Amino acid sequence: MELNKRQQQIIDIVKHNGPITGEHIADRLDLTRATLRPDLAILTMSGILEARPRVGYYYTNKSQNKIIADELKKYHVREYASHPIIIKNGMSIYDAICTIFMEDVSTLFIINEKGDFVGVCSRKDLLRASMMGEDIHTTPVDIIMTRMPNLSYISMDDKVIYAAQLMIEKEIDSLPIVQQKENGNLEIKGRISKTTITKLFVSLFKE
Amino acid sequence: MELNKRQQQIIDIVKHNGPITGEHIADRLDLTRATLRPDLAILTMSGILEARPRVGYYYTNKSQNKIIADELKKYHVREYASHPIIIKNGMSIYDAICTIFMEDVSTLFIINEKGDFVGVCSRKDLLRASMMGEDIHTTPVDIIMTRMPNLSYISMDDKVIYAAQLMIEKEIDSLPIVQQKENGNLEIKGRISKTTITKLFVSLFKE
Repeated sequence: MELNKRQQQIIDIVKHNGPITGEHIADRLDLTRATLRPDLAILTMSGILEARPRVGYYYTNKSQNKIIADELKKYHVREYASHPIIIKNGMSIYDAICTIFMEDVSTLFIINEKGDFVGVCSRKDLLRASMMGEDIHTTPVDIIMTRMPNLSYISMDDKVIYAAQLMIEKEIDSLPIVQQKENGNLEIKGRISKTTITKLFVSLFKE
Repeated sequence: MELNKRQQQIIDIVKHNGPITGEHIADRLDLTRATLRPDLAILTMSGILEARPRVGYYYTNKSQNKIIADELKKYHVREYASHPIIIKNGMSIYDAICTIFMEDVSTLFIINEKGDFVGVCSRKDLLRASMMGEDIHTTPVDIIMTRMPNLSYISMDDKVIYAAQLMIEKEIDSLPIVQQKENGNLEIKGRISKTTITKLFVSLFKE
């Protein structure tokens, strides 16, 4: 919303003196109430000011936050999904560490023989496991992975804002995007991470 | 910005038929041009529509992106700084791994005897180093840390959006917030991470 100089002056006056009547605003600007009427109408319609009968105008920035919240609600996981790095259960911890480096991701997703999503293994899990020494060559990743019912996941139709909330709540860096199969098991379709959110944050500024 | 039903109808018409003249919009709504004038004025002043002489009205959502960009510019690193986890150079890789687990961070910052910022060591660096086996007990973290001139950092007065851009550009998960000392060296004052950005993203929605 591009405000003209007078509208900006009105906002400043109301910010510092509100609630204030239209007459008093006009007085301060050395203008008539009638002259100000269109500006006040625009400022109240846009939600920047609110008018209460017998009280006057006061400052609310409701519109701005509402606009941002509405904008954020538009982003769906589908449009921001990235490629998931998936390994099979039974893979050794050593091979999992090699995979996480080769693919340069923070998290690996694990499936069973049927392709069902069964676990998650983060860089942190692997670092902890690496302290085991030589055993990492023979120990399967299944031993250290997070498994049901402790797995968090989202679907392609979820909103990005929900994914961000879930990562903060669960204190994890990335989430698998899954789809339910006919037998009720989950298939991994994508990935979303705090990097995705940070990129989106940056793009909000650039747009 | 709270639009009334008629303004919403105008936007829909212009979205699908723009550029379109005020007369044609009025025709479609079975109203006179004069009746629409205040609505069109508000929609153009708010930046939702733009009017070009001899061409007509067309849809632009400039204002919305501008509002978001303006909002994002308000956030400074100072208000979102978290506590930095700092270790001294010479610490063994093994002790660094223990520290990163105890403090539950993704990155350690390293200082020398004088307290100057000299390096960064991420969970990824430590995972790579952990493959060295027994040597991690005797090898200092200095061997594996990132050092000048490859260090990225920000100051308390920088904007959060700049920190987010830098993390994406440099492909890192967190940044030290530094202050220049009188001798020109850097002192670590705080930390900002992709988690900080994700939390801020979530709070934008809640506000």
